[in-house]
Amino acid sequence: MPAGSLTGAEGLSYAAAGVDIEAYERVLEKVKPLIAATHGKDVAVGVGPFAGLYALPGGGHLAASADGVGTKIKIAIAAGSHRGIGVDIVNHCVNDIATAGARPLFFLDYFATGRLDPEVFTQLIEGMTAACREAGCALLGGETAEMPGVYALGDYDLAGFIIGLVEAGRNPDHARIKAGDVLIGLPSSGLHTNGYSLVRKVFEDVPLSRVFPELGRPLGDVLLEPHTSYLDELGRLRWKGAAHITGGGILGNLPRCLPDRLGARLDRKAWTAPPIFELIRTRGRVADDEMYGTFNMGLGMIVVVDPSEVPAGAAVVGEVVRHSGPDRVVIS
Amino acid sequence: MPAGSLTGAEGLSYAAAGVDIEAYERVLEKVKPLIAATHGKDVAVGVGPFAGLYALPGGGHLAASADGVGTKIKIAIAAGSHRGIGVDIVNHCVNDIATAGARPLFFLDYFATGRLDPEVFTQLIEGMTAACREAGCALLGGETAEMPGVYALGDYDLAGFIIGLVEAGRNPDHARIKAGDVLIGLPSSGLHTNGYSLVRKVFEDVPLSRVFPELGRPLGDVLLEPHTSYLDELGRLRWKGAAHITGGGILGNLPRCLPDRLGARLDRKAWTAPPIFELIRTRGRVADDEMYGTFNMGLGMIVVVDPSEVPAGAAVVGEVVRHSGPDRVVIS
Repeated sequence: MPAGSLTGAEGLSYAAAGVDIEAYERVLEKVKPLIAATHGKDVAVGVGPFAGLYALPGGGHLAASADGVGTKIKIAIAAGSHRGIGVDIVNHCVNDIATAGARPLFFLDYFATGRLDPEVFTQLIEGMTAACREAGCALLGGETAEMPGVYALGDYDLAGFIIGLVEAGRNPDHARIKAGDVLIGLPSSGLHTNGYSLVRKVFEDVPLSRVFPELGRPLGDVLLEPHTSYLDELGRLRWKGAAHITGGGILGNLPRCLPDRLGARLDRKAWTAPPIFELIRTRGRVADDEMYGTFNMGLGMIVVVDPSEVPAGAAVVGEVVRHSGPDRVVIS
Repeated sequence: MPAGSLTGAEGLSYAAAGVDIEAYERVLEKVKPLIAATHGKDVAVGVGPFAGLYALPGGGHLAASADGVGTKIKIAIAAGSHRGIGVDIVNHCVNDIATAGARPLFFLDYFATGRLDPEVFTQLIEGMTAACREAGCALLGGETAEMPGVYALGDYDLAGFIIGLVEAGRNPDHARIKAGDVLIGLPSSGLHTNGYSLVRKVFEDVPLSRVFPELGRPLGDVLLEPHTSYLDELGRLRWKGAAHITGGGILGNLPRCLPDRLGARLDRKAWTAPPIFELIRTRGRVADDEMYGTFNMGLGMIVVVDPSEVPAGAAVVGEVVRHSGPDRVVIS
């Protein structure tokens, strides 16, 4: 079963990283009424599945997202390189709310560890603050916890929480998405923050310093490449919907920005994935379905635009289609 | 060294639970300029040290806080009882932003575990949603992560993020606090979510089912008593400042709501602490300073009011004084 992300019905944005999705769906089904009972009329329903939306008294919405970095942290710990993890958590959050048309306002982190290592903490803050500045977003606060009984010495976890502003009338209008709309792929820098449990298995006997010829630099550097921010690129496009390709890969995430009854057809020859994906596929003998259902495969964000709005030079990777067969996303 | 909470200068609300405070202060000093560089004019400075404040375009502020539950989780795991942990994380967050005069809007959680246990997850959601409803706050979303390499089987961590609204003109005016103002203590239900690393040492050889005569019920039940919400009580008082007594205890937290040059004098005979605190003190031979610098000692929130605003029946526990000696808070 691939790692995955999912969103509940009723606008509920509950993501899951590396979780057994079937088990998670069952328990989420059970608690959904409890969660829905906390929702007043201020909670926007049915839009923005990558972010929660809350109506502001003065108009517009707040968009919110909570994220983790998953087991990419284990690679950072092994490599002693943490700055990129700080960038990862911020950009993951920034992209999630960007799909709701939100401009980031501020970010908070939760850092928990067995014993505070000043060097690790400093690197994480360096990464987080650099990404926050890039996104025009304040690092407003955070919580730092030493929990020796929970985290092994040297281990840590990092979660992020972001709030953005969706100005009145700026929510993307998913309902306007129709068959024939064009899918533009925005290139990823690598794995971003998903699929690392699988990746760690594939490379478990390989030192991070190893330079595979097809990568041309140490494996650890490639695996720790920070998550790309798509804030500026989304700002330049006129788009109707956007899918942030995180846990669950293209297959799991692209449908999240499409109305029911619509699916997508992608042409895999329309873009070139970074070589790390092919290395994972061959070395791990990973099936295609699992690759596209786990990884971003070189497309960190997929954007839905009207055929009339495709800018010159954009990477058209597919189109929106009427959904008939068993699979909402067909990649051929 | 007691566990503690601290807030950086410049309105930065960076809390620390169970962390070596000196080491944390040194590293925080180093990264403070990086954090400050992410702050635009929208970040409110110098107020609300328990929460970060962000100015809304339409007036008023958003108040934000990130919190964890600390190693209380270890007791919940040992007892197989998790609902209260869900209440804890929400109420901890609610109280933090309530000290900034904020009404909660919405909450998000980050739940990370070795392997998703549907029963644990369900209990946590039950607790979180119950506390959210109590606070009139939406559970807007969250992230659930399975990270078997980081968390041992059965272990988990839970972080919470809350956003509240401070209506224009409703920020508490700490600058108006003066010597002679009255301190009202709001009773805690027990340890709330702080001091558990010490508590676990004190009771390490005691089964959670043991009924100490002075407690009158199983130790585990007393230790897992959920964090009290003070939202309603704060709403009924006219107050100038409020200190949420979390990690760092009364000594660490009360000064956080006072202007420089002011301190506090508390009369320990003015309130009765739940018996668990005396049991911890005698059984662990814990010094008084450490008790008051680690635990809430029966006062989960201490509120500063003008002498003319003390309601009938309020528990007056002390007063604001000019700060001269080495200790800003004197308890005698």
